[in-house]
Amino acid sequence: MTDKTSNQMWGGRFADRPDAIMEAINASIGFDKRLAAQDIAGSRAHAAMLAATGIVEDNDVEAIRKGLLTVLSEIESGDFEFSTALEDIHMNVEARLKEVVGEAAGRLHTARSRNDQVATDFRLWVRDQLDAAESGLLALMRALVAQAEAGADWVMPGFTHLQTAQPVTWGHHMLAYVEMFSRDLGRVRDARARMNESPLGAAALAGTGFPIDREMTAKELGFDRPMANSLDAVSARDFALEFLSAASISAMHLSRMAEELVIWSSAQFRFVTLSDRFSTGSSIMPQKKNPDAAELIRAKIGRIFGANVALMMVMKGLPLAYSKDMQEDKEQVFDAADNWLLALAAMEGMVRDMQGNVPALEAAASHGFSTATDLADWLVRETGLPFREAHHVTGSLVAMAEKKGCDLPDLTLADMQSVHGSITEGVFEVLGVHNSVASRMSYGGTAPARVREQVARWQEILG
Amino acid sequence: MTDKTSNQMWGGRFADRPDAIMEAINASIGFDKRLAAQDIAGSRAHAAMLAATGIVEDNDVEAIRKGLLTVLSEIESGDFEFSTALEDIHMNVEARLKEVVGEAAGRLHTARSRNDQVATDFRLWVRDQLDAAESGLLALMRALVAQAEAGADWVMPGFTHLQTAQPVTWGHHMLAYVEMFSRDLGRVRDARARMNESPLGAAALAGTGFPIDREMTAKELGFDRPMANSLDAVSARDFALEFLSAASISAMHLSRMAEELVIWSSAQFRFVTLSDRFSTGSSIMPQKKNPDAAELIRAKIGRIFGANVALMMVMKGLPLAYSKDMQEDKEQVFDAADNWLLALAAMEGMVRDMQGNVPALEAAASHGFSTATDLADWLVRETGLPFREAHHVTGSLVAMAEKKGCDLPDLTLADMQSVHGSITEGVFEVLGVHNSVASRMSYGGTAPARVREQVARWQEILG
Amino acid sequence: MTDKTSNQMWGGRFADRPDAIMEAINASIGFDKRLAAQDIAGSRAHAAMLAATGIVEDNDVEAIRKGLLTVLSEIESGDFEFSTALEDIHMNVEARLKEVVGEAAGRLHTARSRNDQVATDFRLWVRDQLDAAESGLLALMRALVAQAEAGADWVMPGFTHLQTAQPVTWGHHMLAYVEMFSRDLGRVRDARARMNESPLGAAALAGTGFPIDREMTAKELGFDRPMANSLDAVSARDFALEFLSAASISAMHLSRMAEELVIWSSAQFRFVTLSDRFSTGSSIMPQKKNPDAAELIRAKIGRIFGANVALMMVMKGLPLAYSKDMQEDKEQVFDAADNWLLALAAMEGMVRDMQGNVPALEAAASHGFSTATDLADWLVRETGLPFREAHHVTGSLVAMAEKKGCDLPDLTLADMQSVHGSITEGVFEVLGVHNSVASRMSYGGTAPARVREQVARWQEILG
Amino acid sequence: MTDKTSNQMWGGRFADRPDAIMEAINASIGFDKRLAAQDIAGSRAHAAMLAATGIVEDNDVEAIRKGLLTVLSEIESGDFEFSTALEDIHMNVEARLKEVVGEAAGRLHTARSRNDQVATDFRLWVRDQLDAAESGLLALMRALVAQAEAGADWVMPGFTHLQTAQPVTWGHHMLAYVEMFSRDLGRVRDARARMNESPLGAAALAGTGFPIDREMTAKELGFDRPMANSLDAVSARDFALEFLSAASISAMHLSRMAEELVIWSSAQFRFVTLSDRFSTGSSIMPQKKNPDAAELIRAKIGRIFGANVALMMVMKGLPLAYSKDMQEDKEQVFDAADNWLLALAAMEGMVRDMQGNVPALEAAASHGFSTATDLADWLVRETGLPFREAHHVTGSLVAMAEKKGCDLPDLTLADMQSVHGSITEGVFEVLGVHNSVASRMSYGGTAPARVREQVARWQEILG
Repeated sequence: MTDKTSNQMWGGRFADRPDAIMEAINASIGFDKRLAAQDIAGSRAHAAMLAATGIVEDNDVEAIRKGLLTVLSEIESGDFEFSTALEDIHMNVEARLKEVVGEAAGRLHTARSRNDQVATDFRLWVRDQLDAAESGLLALMRALVAQAEAGADWVMPGFTHLQTAQPVTWGHHMLAYVEMFSRDLGRVRDARARMNESPLGAAALAGTGFPIDREMTAKELGFDRPMANSLDAVSARDFALEFLSAASISAMHLSRMAEELVIWSSAQFRFVTLSDRFSTGSSIMPQKKNPDAAELIRAKIGRIFGANVALMMVMKGLPLAYSKDMQEDKEQVFDAADNWLLALAAMEGMVRDMQGNVPALEAAASHGFSTATDLADWLVRETGLPFREAHHVTGSLVAMAEKKGCDLPDLTLADMQSVHGSITEGVFEVLGVHNSVASRMSYGGTAPARVREQVARWQEILG
Repeated sequence: MTDKTSNQMWGGRFADRPDAIMEAINASIGFDKRLAAQDIAGSRAHAAMLAATGIVEDNDVEAIRKGLLTVLSEIESGDFEFSTALEDIHMNVEARLKEVVGEAAGRLHTARSRNDQVATDFRLWVRDQLDAAESGLLALMRALVAQAEAGADWVMPGFTHLQTAQPVTWGHHMLAYVEMFSRDLGRVRDARARMNESPLGAAALAGTGFPIDREMTAKELGFDRPMANSLDAVSARDFALEFLSAASISAMHLSRMAEELVIWSSAQFRFVTLSDRFSTGSSIMPQKKNPDAAELIRAKIGRIFGANVALMMVMKGLPLAYSKDMQEDKEQVFDAADNWLLALAAMEGMVRDMQGNVPALEAAASHGFSTATDLADWLVRETGLPFREAHHVTGSLVAMAEKKGCDLPDLTLADMQSVHGSITEGVFEVLGVHNSVASRMSYGGTAPARVREQVARWQEILG
Repeated sequence: MTDKTSNQMWGGRFADRPDAIMEAINASIGFDKRLAAQDIAGSRAHAAMLAATGIVEDNDVEAIRKGLLTVLSEIESGDFEFSTALEDIHMNVEARLKEVVGEAAGRLHTARSRNDQVATDFRLWVRDQLDAAESGLLALMRALVAQAEAGADWVMPGFTHLQTAQPVTWGHHMLAYVEMFSRDLGRVRDARARMNESPLGAAALAGTGFPIDREMTAKELGFDRPMANSLDAVSARDFALEFLSAASISAMHLSRMAEELVIWSSAQFRFVTLSDRFSTGSSIMPQKKNPDAAELIRAKIGRIFGANVALMMVMKGLPLAYSKDMQEDKEQVFDAADNWLLALAAMEGMVRDMQGNVPALEAAASHGFSTATDLADWLVRETGLPFREAHHVTGSLVAMAEKKGCDLPDLTLADMQSVHGSITEGVFEVLGVHNSVASRMSYGGTAPARVREQVARWQEILG
Repeated sequence: MTDKTSNQMWGGRFADRPDAIMEAINASIGFDKRLAAQDIAGSRAHAAMLAATGIVEDNDVEAIRKGLLTVLSEIESGDFEFSTALEDIHMNVEARLKEVVGEAAGRLHTARSRNDQVATDFRLWVRDQLDAAESGLLALMRALVAQAEAGADWVMPGFTHLQTAQPVTWGHHMLAYVEMFSRDLGRVRDARARMNESPLGAAALAGTGFPIDREMTAKELGFDRPMANSLDAVSARDFALEFLSAASISAMHLSRMAEELVIWSSAQFRFVTLSDRFSTGSSIMPQKKNPDAAELIRAKIGRIFGANVALMMVMKGLPLAYSKDMQEDKEQVFDAADNWLLALAAMEGMVRDMQGNVPALEAAASHGFSTATDLADWLVRETGLPFREAHHVTGSLVAMAEKKGCDLPDLTLADMQSVHGSITEGVFEVLGVHNSVASRMSYGGTAPARVREQVARWQEILG
C-alpha cells in the first residue's frame, strides 16, 4: 500500500504529498515507458557487472536479471500496468521487479542513479533511431536511383526561380536528391559514432566509490567506451540535439522534394502522376486527386525542427549537472524521430510508385527558350565572342523570338544574322533539347551518359 | 461492410486503397478527437440553420440534432469507438450519426465542407483555451498580489547582472510579475477578440449557392460575425499562430520567474522556501529538496515556442486555400495549450505556497554596497555636485570600503571626508536599506507606500 | 584624454582596462546609434522635467536642451564621430554634450540610469516601426483592393492542395489577402497600444528619491502613461517580442502570397505577369524573367521569425532586472523591422504593377472538372438526393468524363442519365464556370456581386 | 555610363529599370563583399583551368589572373568602390576587372554561372570559419585544462537542480566542459570533411558543354573532389545548415558555462572572481562589477540559433535548382560565425583569467548534507543493507540533522544508532568532503587522481 503522506522513492524527508498539479507536470511515465526495453537492457548489464565485480552476490544478481526479463515480457505483451505515482519507467520497472523477486531488487540500484540510468536509456533509444534512419535513407535512395535509371534520358526543364532555365534529364534531377540524402546519411553515421559512449557508472554526477567496471557495461550495451567525465555523462544532451539537427536538415531535403511533387502534380504542370495509394480525394469535390502524402511530408520539417528549437531552448543556460528541465528532452526526440522515419517511408513509397509524364516533361523543356545558353555558348565557341557579348546577342534573339511568338529554333537564319552577322546554319544543331542535354558532358553534368555513370556508381554503393 | 478497394468518403474515383504508411501519415483521428464537442456543436448549429432556411426539412434536422447529442454522450462517456479508417473526427461523428439516425445523416453535409468544418471546430477549441488562459493568468496574478501585500516592506536586493544593485522590496518584485502577466492577459484578450469570427459557411473555399444564413450559425456558436471572405476562412491560421505567440511570450515571463525561484531556493541564496507539494527528492541523495516544478515551468517555454516555430514553418509559403500541410496545426496547438495552462497552474500553486525568508533577504540587501546610488544621489542633492562627479566620488568610497573589508555605513565620516570634503554626518541617514527603499517614492518606485498603492489598485482590478 | 587604465563612465573601481575581445563583444555603438534621435528626444524630455521640478537649475537645463539639438544635428548631418570606447549611443551623446555645453552636461543624468534610458529609447524606436508598418500594410491593402476591383469577375481556379477545386474570382482571391493583412494591422495597433507606456523615471531599477514627474516626461514623449513598476520598466522586453511576433505572422502571410506569385509566374501557369521593375534576368540564361522580388519576400519570413526566435531565447530564464544579455535585443528588432517594411513595400509595388492573364486564368478554371461540386449541389437541390449520395453520383460522372478525355459539360445528357436517371437538361446550366461563381452568393462567397460589395466596404475603410 | 533603361548584366530583354525598392531588396553587395577573397580565388582557379583546357587563350587568362590580383589588392587596401547597381561581389569584381584588363575580362565567365560561382565562394568562406572555430575551440579547451590542472583537488559542490548534491572537484567540473567542447570540435571536423567538395563547373545548373576540368579547379581550391551532380551543386545549402547546427550546439554549451559563471560571480555564491578585463561597471551603481562578458556569451545562443532557424525556414520547400530566396543564406551565416568565434574567444579569455575562490568552494561543498550518498553507500557496503533501505535510513538521519540545525558529521554516533543500530564509528570517515571526492575512483569519477589522469590525457591531445 502506498504511503499516504510521502512519495515512496524519495519522500522520506517530505511532510506533504505532491499536489495533483505537481504530479501532472512532474510525472514522465506517460512518455518514458517507450524506454522500457532500453531501461531493462541497461539494468541487466549493470546487474551482471555488479556480480562480476563482487559488489552484489551472484544469486541476487541472477534473480534480478531473470526478473527483469519477466518484467520486459509483461510490458511487451501489454500486461504491465504503469503507475503515475511511480513517476517514471525506472521506478515502474523497479517496483514490479521487487514484486517479482523480492528484496534482492533493492540491490540493483547500488552504484548507480536515475541520472546515469536515464542518460543510458535515452542514448540507447536514440541510437536505435539513427539505425532506423539509416535504413530509411538507404531505401529512399534506392527508389530514387531506380527512377534515375528509368529516366536517364527523359528531358525535362531545369528550373531556376521556377522559370525554365535549361533542359535537364529526369535521371539527373532524381540523382540530385540521392546526393542530398547521402549527405543526410553521413550526418546520421557521424552522429552515431560520436554519441556511442556509455554514461552508465557516472552515478548521480560524481562517479562512485564502488569498484564498478564501466568498460564491461559499455561493451555489453554495444557502446564503444565509457564516457570520460561523470558530470558530463549526466549533463550532456548534445547527442539529442545533434540527432534533431540531422533530422531537421534531412526533413528540409524532404520538404524540397515534396514541394516539387506538389507542383508537378498540378493540372498546370502534369509532370508526374502519383499513385492512388499516396493520394486522397475530397469530401465535396469528387474530381480531386490530392497529393496529401507530399504535403504532409512537406509539413514535417515544421514539427521536426520545432522539436529541435524546443530542446535547444530547454538546454540554454542550464547549469551542470542534471536539472529537471532536461526531462523535456524525450517527448521532443520521440516525436521528431517518429515523424522523420514516417516521412522517409512515405517519400520512398511515393517515389517508388510515381510515374513521370515523359511527353509533358519534354514539351515543357522545349518551350521558354530553354536552349538560349546553348546558343550563347555556341557563339563563344564558334565565333570567338567573349561570353558577355555572346550573352547580349542571345538576349536580343530571345527578344526577337518572343515578339514573333515563336521559340529559338523557329527563327530563320536570316533573322539570326540580322542580329549578328557571323551566325551560321550550324547553330540550329544546338537548339534542340536532346542535343542540349547530350552536350553537357562535364563531370556531374546532365548528359544521359553522365547520369548512367552515376546510376551505376550508386547501384554499387547501395548494393 | 467497407469497400475493399476504396475509401468510403472520397474513394469513388480511386482504384487503389491507401498504403499502410499513407494511413499512418494521413489519419488525424488520433488527435483531432479532442475536437469532438466543438465538432458536434458546429454541426448542430449548421443543421438548425439548414432547417431555418428551408434547405433541409425540419424532421430530418430534428433527427440529426438529436442524434448528434447521442453521439456526443457516447464520446463523453468513453463508449465511442474511434476508427482510423474514417480518418478524422468529422467522418467518425458522421458515420456514427448515420447508424443512429439513418439516411437523414447524409443531408447534414449539405452546403458545407470539411474545410470550413475543421476551421470552425479549431477556432472554437482555441477560443476555449484563451478563456482558460485568462483564468489561469488571473489566478496567478492574485497569488502574486497576495505575496506583494504580505511583503510590501520586506527588503531584498534588487539585482542587475545578478549582482546586488539597490535594495528593493519583496512586494515590488512580486508586482513586477503582475505587470508582465497583465500584459500577457491583454494579449489573450486581443487575440480572442480578433479570432472570434465564424468560418462556417465558407464551404470548400468559394462559398455556396445554397441560401444559407451565416449570421445565424455565427451567433449560435458565440462568434461575433461571419468571416467576410470564404477563401480566407478556410486558409487562415494566423489565429493559431497568434495564440502560440501569446502563449510563448507568457511562457517567457514564467521562465524568468522560474529561474529566480530556482536560484532563490539554492543553499547559497536561501531567499525562499518552496512547499513540499511543489518539490521532489532524489533517489540517491536523500537530503535534496529540488525545485522541480520551477525547473519544469522554466523548460516549458521550449515546448510552447517550439510549437510556434513548428506551425510557422508549416504555414510558410502555403498557397491558398487549404493544403494538407495544415493538418499539422492541431497537435502543436494542443500541446502548447496543455503545457501553458499547466505551467500557469503550477506557478500559481508555488507562488501561493512559497515563503520568503525575510532575514536572509534583508541580510543580502545590506551587503554589496547596495546603497551606493543613495550616496551618489545624496552628494548631488546636498552638495550640488553634477551627477557624473558624484558618481566618481562614490566609486572611490566603495573602493575604500572594499579595501577595508567593510560596507559603506561602516566607513567613518573622516574616511568619507578624505575623499570629498563637503560630506557631512547627514549622509549616514541614506545608507541604511530601509531608508533607501522608503526614499524611492517616485511613481512606480519600490517604496513600501508605493507598493501598497499598487497592491490596492490590483486588488480592485482583480476583484 | 582618455584614462589609460579605466573606462571613463564606470571605471573608477577598476584596475584593468577591458580586453580587445571584451570591447568587441561589449560595445553596442555599432548598432545602437540608430537610436540617436530617440535618445536625444528622451534626454530633452528628461531635462525639461528636471527643470520643471526644480531638481536642476533652469539655465543648466536650457544649455543641455540646446546642446542636445546641436548634437542631433551633427549626427543627422553625418558629422558626428562615434567612439567605440564610449560603448553606446547614450555615452557618445553625453560625452559630446559635455564638449558642447561643459560641466552642466553632468547634471543630465540626475535621477535616471542607462537602464531606463535605453528602455525608453528602444520603445520609442519600436513605436515608430509600428507606425511605419501600419502605413505599409494600408498601402498594400489598397493595392490589393484595386486589383480586386479590376478583376471582380475574372474567373480563375480556386485551389486546394494546388489542385483545381472550384472556380473563384480574381477579386475574391485578392480580398482574401486584404483580410489577412487587416488582421496583421489589428495586431500592430494592439501592440502599439499595449507598449505605449513610459519606462523613463524607473532609474536603475528601483525608482528614485528625486521628486521627478513621470507623467510629464511620458506626455512629452507621446506615451499614454508611465509604467507602474520600475523593476518591470527596465526588465520588460515583451513589447519587442510582440513586435516580432506580429511581424512574423505578417511575413507568413507575405510568404504565402509570394509563393503564389512565383508559381503563377511560371511558364506552366502564366496566371500573372510581373512588371520588369520587380523582376530580374540571368547572367547566363538571357531568356529568363525571374520573380526575384517575390522570392526574396518569401524568404523574409526566415529572417524575421529568426529574429523572434533569437530574442525569445535571449530572454528565456533571465532574472530581474536588467541583464547584459538584453543588449542583444536591438539588432534583432532592427533587422526584422527593416526587412518587414521592405517586404511590405516590395509586395505593394508588385501587386500594383502585376497583370492578371485573364484568358489563362479562365482556361485553367474551366478544366479539371472544377464544377463537380456545382453538379453535386444541383443533384441535392433538384433531385433531393442526400449530399453524400449526390457526391458519389458526381464521382462516377467525373470518372466517366476522365475516361472519355473530356470535361463535365462535354458529357451528353444520355451519358449522365446512364449514371443517374433523374438528371435533366437543366444540369448543364450549372456546369459553366461563370455560372458557377455567380451562384456562390452566400455571405463571403466568390460571386462577383459579393466581391464588389467587399471592395466597396474596403474602399470606405481604407479611404 | 550606365544604360538608363536596363541593368547591364542581364537587362538586354528588359524594358524597365528596377524600382528603388527592388534594388534595395535585391542587391547583395552590402554583405557579399565579404566573399571578395574567395570570389577572386575561385575566379583565378577557373581562369587557370580555362587556359589549361584550351577553352580560352593563355595570354587572355594571364591578363585575367593578374588583373584579379590587382582587384584583390584594391579591395584589401580599401580603395575599391563597391557599386550597388552592380548588385553583388561577382559583378563588382568582373566590372572592375574589365576596366583593368579590357575585353579579355569578358572571357572569364565562359563555362560558369553566378550560381556555381556563389556556391563556390560561400563554401570556401564557410570552410575558413570551420577552421577558425577549430582554433577557437582548441584554445578554449586548453584554458579549461589549465584550470583543471590548477584545481584538480579543490572541492566544490556538485549540483543537481542547483541544489548541493555531492562534492566534486573544480578540475572535474572544468573537464566536463572540455568533453563538451571536444564533441563540438568533432562536429566541426565532420562538417568540414562533408562539405569540402567543389561546386565549380556545375554552371547554371546542368553542367556545360565546354571541356572543363573540374578536378583541376577542385584541387586548386583545396577541395577534396568536385560535386557529382550539377543540380545539387547549385541547390545545396545543407553545408551551411550543418555549420549553423554545429555552431548552435556549441553556443548551447557556452551558454551553460556562462550561466554558471554569472551565478558563481554573485555575492551569494562567490565561487569565482572574474578579471576586470571581462567585467564592467554601472553608470549609476559604482560598486557593481558585472559579469557582462558571461552574460553576452550566454545570449549568443539566441543569435546563432536564430540564424539556424532563419536559414532552415528559407530553405523549406524550395524547388530545385537555384531560387533567389537562397540569397538570404549569407547574412545569417556571417553573423552566426562572427558571434560564435567572438564568444569562443571571450570565453577563453574569461576562463584563462578567472580565479576560483577555494575557501568559498569548499565551505559550500561542506554544507547541505552533501555526503549523504556516501553515508548511504557506506551502509550498503558495511552493513549489507539493500540500497533502497540504506537510502531511507540516510533520509531519516538527514531529517534529524536538519531538525538539530547541524550537518551530518555533527551528529553523534548515538544519534545515528538511534536510527539504525548497526552504524559504527567508521561512518565518520566517509562524511568529510575530501574523503568523499577521493573515494569516487570509478572511471570518469571526480577523485583528484582521476582528474589528473584526464588532465594528462588532454594535455597530450591538445599539445
